[in-house]
Amino acid sequence: MISDFQPSKETQTMRAGPSQEDIRRHNLGALLRHVHLGGPISRAELTSRMGLNRSTIMALTSDLTAAGLVREELPRETGRAGRPSLVVRPESARVYVFAFDVGPDRLAVARVGLGGVILDRREAARTRGPFELEEIVGALSGFARQMRRRTRADTVCVGVAAAVSGGVRKGDGVVRFGPNLLAEEVPFGEELGRRLGLGLPVSVGNDANLGALAEHSRGVGVNVRDLIYLHGDVGIGGGIIAGGHLLGGHDGYGGEVGHMVVNPGGRACGCGSHGCLEAEVGERALLELAGRYGEGQQGRDAVRAVVEAADRGDIVAQEALARVGDWLGLGVANLVNVFNPEMVVFGGMLREVYLSTAAQVRSRLATNAMAPQRERLRLRTSALGDAATLVGAAELAFAHVLADPLEVLARVTG
Amino acid sequence: MISDFQPSKETQTMRAGPSQEDIRRHNLGALLRHVHLGGPISRAELTSRMGLNRSTIMALTSDLTAAGLVREELPRETGRAGRPSLVVRPESARVYVFAFDVGPDRLAVARVGLGGVILDRREAARTRGPFELEEIVGALSGFARQMRRRTRADTVCVGVAAAVSGGVRKGDGVVRFGPNLLAEEVPFGEELGRRLGLGLPVSVGNDANLGALAEHSRGVGVNVRDLIYLHGDVGIGGGIIAGGHLLGGHDGYGGEVGHMVVNPGGRACGCGSHGCLEAEVGERALLELAGRYGEGQQGRDAVRAVVEAADRGDIVAQEALARVGDWLGLGVANLVNVFNPEMVVFGGMLREVYLSTAAQVRSRLATNAMAPQRERLRLRTSALGDAATLVGAAELAFAHVLADPLEVLARVTG
Repeated sequence: MISDFQPSKETQTMRAGPSQEDIRRHNLGALLRHVHLGGPISRAELTSRMGLNRSTIMALTSDLTAAGLVREELPRETGRAGRPSLVVRPESARVYVFAFDVGPDRLAVARVGLGGVILDRREAARTRGPFELEEIVGALSGFARQMRRRTRADTVCVGVAAAVSGGVRKGDGVVRFGPNLLAEEVPFGEELGRRLGLGLPVSVGNDANLGALAEHSRGVGVNVRDLIYLHGDVGIGGGIIAGGHLLGGHDGYGGEVGHMVVNPGGRACGCGSHGCLEAEVGERALLELAGRYGEGQQGRDAVRAVVEAADRGDIVAQEALARVGDWLGLGVANLVNVFNPEMVVFGGMLREVYLSTAAQVRSRLATNAMAPQRERLRLRTSALGDAATLVGAAELAFAHVLADPLEVLARVTG
Repeated sequence: MISDFQPSKETQTMRAGPSQEDIRRHNLGALLRHVHLGGPISRAELTSRMGLNRSTIMALTSDLTAAGLVREELPRETGRAGRPSLVVRPESARVYVFAFDVGPDRLAVARVGLGGVILDRREAARTRGPFELEEIVGALSGFARQMRRRTRADTVCVGVAAAVSGGVRKGDGVVRFGPNLLAEEVPFGEELGRRLGLGLPVSVGNDANLGALAEHSRGVGVNVRDLIYLHGDVGIGGGIIAGGHLLGGHDGYGGEVGHMVVNPGGRACGCGSHGCLEAEVGERALLELAGRYGEGQQGRDAVRAVVEAADRGDIVAQEALARVGDWLGLGVANLVNVFNPEMVVFGGMLREVYLSTAAQVRSRLATNAMAPQRERLRLRTSALGDAATLVGAAELAFAHVLADPLEVLARVTG
């Protein structure tokens, strides 16, 4: 007598159903997505997973093979009698994207092949200070040029995306705010696209949003439809997957959980407010509480030094971590009440902080999160580590290809 | 050179595209949804809005007409020369659902016709106290029986849903928690379905979630894809529409914004925590601050009395409202940072509170919400008022019909 309340359904689907051409495009994308995210897979397995018949799968793989996106091979060994099913593999060495990551302390670039293989990667330390657009875009595009020189002639770049530690406006890649990059109203996507000169659009996303996408696609949160990724760098960012969708918000600034006030009247925050999660849990709070702020050390090494000191029995470091962990726990409890996620993932420097303060975090959850909301909750650390934001940028760059594989390939090779 | 970051896209769509039968079902549902939500509409207008050709629209409307879900009529007057396009109307008098609402202070039942017409409605005051399942379900099903006796023989009930002031588990309609109903682990949906004896499943949802759905479907938030509905009753509930989808969370408890801690160490909350938004902004906080708690008055009338006293110049009432408005503003600022909504809607008793404290709310937003997140934000009061939760329950009850109109109708008419 009881049916589901299906809250994640699109509440207003009033457009007409898809055409035959839409369906073919969808199926090509869906097949390519299987190969891209799951790796080599037999035609037989695709038939079963996609619920399509063998001849349709054969037609789709033929189209993708002809476009040079996948290739089909006999499996090495089957262990079974009879004709083995052909295995479909992504053309990882041929088809790639450029992924960029701009954080407070580093610039990173990767050339990532279809299937998520990091083919090449460069990184440079960045000195904290004003956001020098020309200098940053110059360094990033310089790395990309070096990498391109080393590629074979038959390779093809199908997309470009960048993760930025800041709020990025939906639609034009402008970094509206980035207190920890000292960036404001920076036309980053446009400028990077111009300097790269590849004739490709540059998608730009918030780094924690893209970290969430990465953990959901290839990390600890595969198949988790309700996931919160908390990213600690200098500040605290968030990326939220709700019902299988990345929560973007009206203008693209969704997930700024670092500026949720957890302690009214608390520490001053770079955003101008007080007592934000970022102000109570970010790098500066930890270092100040540990009596190590301004000692010359900063960034991930400085955070690790506090954790190591606490492990060695340093009382001040232990108390600093306990305090930060307590606020982190309150922030997580609030998010658990609001979102009822299946999983919360701690990434960036929050990985280290969470591992040292799990007791405080769990205690806050027990006190401040409602029991039904937390009873099936899993707390995890990032599986992708420091690569999460870069991997997420690569997934964003591939999104166009997966939405319409043949059109994109025709355009870039055309 | 710049393309969109499309964060609301399903991140893992790997299933095959729809069959012809799926498409027909989708189109029937889409057409019926136009008529249900938008009211009478000409075939010509449907052709243009749905992007389908005239013969397809004709075939779809014929099917829906034959099933008795819509009827086609010549328009009263056209003002244009030539043959007028037939107008498609919902069969509101014939096809209906039962919608129930269980709040701390009232029980309500409505018979709602396709198209959202409230055909009949009953309401009873409820005394606050333990949740007596048999008594409540008995009263609700008694109302429904009375209403059914007054319907014509050719009417057909196609769905049943209930809004409950509490956390409802996805899948089985069990009310897991409801501190303001004193309900815990109550198999409400199952019991209501049994007592109604209609042979129909009962969908159950949280009242604030359904209020959000109602305002999004028929209220102040039509076409708003990112909306937060805040519902004040005894406590504070929330319903969140993110990217056009109602946020349900992993188990169905998403949107419990009332238990976000805004004031650590603050007032005790019914959930066992302290300083929750509900504890600082709910009915009890307002009445206590105004020196009126336990005076015999409670509920909406007591809240209105505080607002009226403040309007007459009562300093204590004014200060109580200012304090509550300040915490409400902080809660809204937090949600704006996390969700970047296009609109926040104040419903239930928060409608009155917001109208009296808009200055405090806006001041907190200016201080605690980041500028890009709030620059295009609209703050609104509920358009549906006290009917919001009931209207939302009706929409939930119709959801099955809109998903597969012919199957549902064939099933209920046997």
